[in-house]
Amino acid sequence: MKLAIDAMGGDFAPGAVVDGVQQSLAETPDDLKYILVGQTEAIERELGNYSSERITIHHAGEVVTMHDRASRVIKTKPDSSIVTGIKLVAKGDADAFISAGNTGAVMSTSLFALGRIYGVRRPALGAYIPTLKGGKIICDVGANPDAKPYHILQFALMAADYLSHVEDVSDPSVGLVNIGEEPNKGSELYQETHQLLNKELANFVGNVEGRHLLDCEAQVLVCDGFVGNTILKFAEGWINIFAGEIKNRIGSNTRYKLGAGLMRPIFQSIKKQFDYEEYGGTPLLGVNGVSIICHGSSGAKAIKNSIRVAQSCVEKNLIDDIKHSVAEHMGAHN
Amino acid sequence: MKLAIDAMGGDFAPGAVVDGVQQSLAETPDDLKYILVGQTEAIERELGNYSSERITIHHAGEVVTMHDRASRVIKTKPDSSIVTGIKLVAKGDADAFISAGNTGAVMSTSLFALGRIYGVRRPALGAYIPTLKGGKIICDVGANPDAKPYHILQFALMAADYLSHVEDVSDPSVGLVNIGEEPNKGSELYQETHQLLNKELANFVGNVEGRHLLDCEAQVLVCDGFVGNTILKFAEGWINIFAGEIKNRIGSNTRYKLGAGLMRPIFQSIKKQFDYEEYGGTPLLGVNGVSIICHGSSGAKAIKNSIRVAQSCVEKNLIDDIKHSVAEHMGAHN
Repeated sequence: MKLAIDAMGGDFAPGAVVDGVQQSLAETPDDLKYILVGQTEAIERELGNYSSERITIHHAGEVVTMHDRASRVIKTKPDSSIVTGIKLVAKGDADAFISAGNTGAVMSTSLFALGRIYGVRRPALGAYIPTLKGGKIICDVGANPDAKPYHILQFALMAADYLSHVEDVSDPSVGLVNIGEEPNKGSELYQETHQLLNKELANFVGNVEGRHLLDCEAQVLVCDGFVGNTILKFAEGWINIFAGEIKNRIGSNTRYKLGAGLMRPIFQSIKKQFDYEEYGGTPLLGVNGVSIICHGSSGAKAIKNSIRVAQSCVEKNLIDDIKHSVAEHMGAHN
Repeated sequence: MKLAIDAMGGDFAPGAVVDGVQQSLAETPDDLKYILVGQTEAIERELGNYSSERITIHHAGEVVTMHDRASRVIKTKPDSSIVTGIKLVAKGDADAFISAGNTGAVMSTSLFALGRIYGVRRPALGAYIPTLKGGKIICDVGANPDAKPYHILQFALMAADYLSHVEDVSDPSVGLVNIGEEPNKGSELYQETHQLLNKELANFVGNVEGRHLLDCEAQVLVCDGFVGNTILKFAEGWINIFAGEIKNRIGSNTRYKLGAGLMRPIFQSIKKQFDYEEYGGTPLLGVNGVSIICHGSSGAKAIKNSIRVAQSCVEKNLIDDIKHSVAEHMGAHN
């Protein structure tokens, strides 16, 4: 297996990416090869004296920034690490691509260069949410701000396949994010989607209200990309503000410092439990190739874990399974 | 001023409601009268030996539960505390209605019995969000799961009027909840709404992403009711899960208990800062009368603070100001 990794993508690239690859080596089989895609000089500087025959560098002179217009990167920066890396997958020179760079650019370029899996209408982005009752996937979290019921049905199928492949959850249950439990609750889109999911999915458990997203029975949560992205970003912003505020106040007083010291193991275990770095990125679901999108502020640990995700998607042949799941429900489309 | 208060509404009614009224008495002027609406016997039992000439009971034999179909309550339970209380406002026998009961029922009944303020297309529900940078209003949080750009413009006008009346924020800035900062981000609805707000509102500061809802510059945040409700409920659910988890772990070990004891003032001050009970309910914006909707689990403190909100809405004539704000932007509707 060969994995193409965007060495230039993310807030801490290329350092964190190179570190992540190095940490990953010990945990993966010898026949798993790493292709670091990016500016050779910068990558070599990070590698220093380190060398492994399992790591090669594939030069890509350009770097996509957060300011590049995502949908045009394939034309404006054809020699970027993102475009080059995804093309390696398209040509069959790599089995998967992993990037913590500009999410929109990875999405657009993957869609253009890899195409869609047969039958998939709209590729979607899932996010792994660690909860006290195990991990869940929420999908879509931003690829489709406008979605139709049939698209959301496909998000459910693809995310369920992903969860069963990568996290070994067999036959995960599906819930629809909504503002009430009854089938007739929500906007027109969500009322129609409820009906469709109810008809098509044996493992549909109904609507899930915002307050129960983290403690509901459903393991796959589906919604349009506007709602999913807003929830995800809100959660992220909030946890930062909250943690920052507690930290500030602790620093103001010796008594608090002492108390915080005693409680540290609790804070650490909760941090670990809710830390996305533990879980790595998630694949752009529905494109015809494995393209893993990581959080922009991924550190080495997140990169290492994203490599594990990519490996699992390839080994267990996620693409083929999505093709089959989608085909089974093709008739649902009207 | 006369306030009609739903004595039967909310998880802790009638006890918490009667307590809240009693606590409120000392803080309000003598000419503010309280009409407790509900089952006389139950209310008298709560009042016990207590009596004040400022408190009267208005009997209403029926009680709306969470299982009643909200939109039909006005017909199915005409003698309920909700319908009776709102009709007191409609007839001019009370200046405002306050309820912690079935939110949908209070919304529907208010809309039927009070009507809309001239020019308002869709009444909306705002929620007060305490943040470290002062309070914000997010609107709509559930009255309109489907909304159009013009509706969202009116949500902004009404919520800004509310914030300036009740919280004395002069000329509050308005932000549009969205999944990116650029004007062309988001679903079609949000792209069009951005354009409209930009054209109509001098105090529009642009899109606000989920991660910045709590630390953005904007004091009024607008969105459709599906998105607003989901965010609000998610936040509420999450804080409960988080706090519960920390509490569980603290209980497991003496060292943690000691640490938590030392840190207690921090936890308490943060709890106080984010506690909706400190702020009370918010009016259903756009109906032609003051109808305050409180959280279902309101305790006495929340009821007391909701009375303060109602008083302020009446004194400062919120209804008239909304009528003027809406009239100023009437031409925006196409």
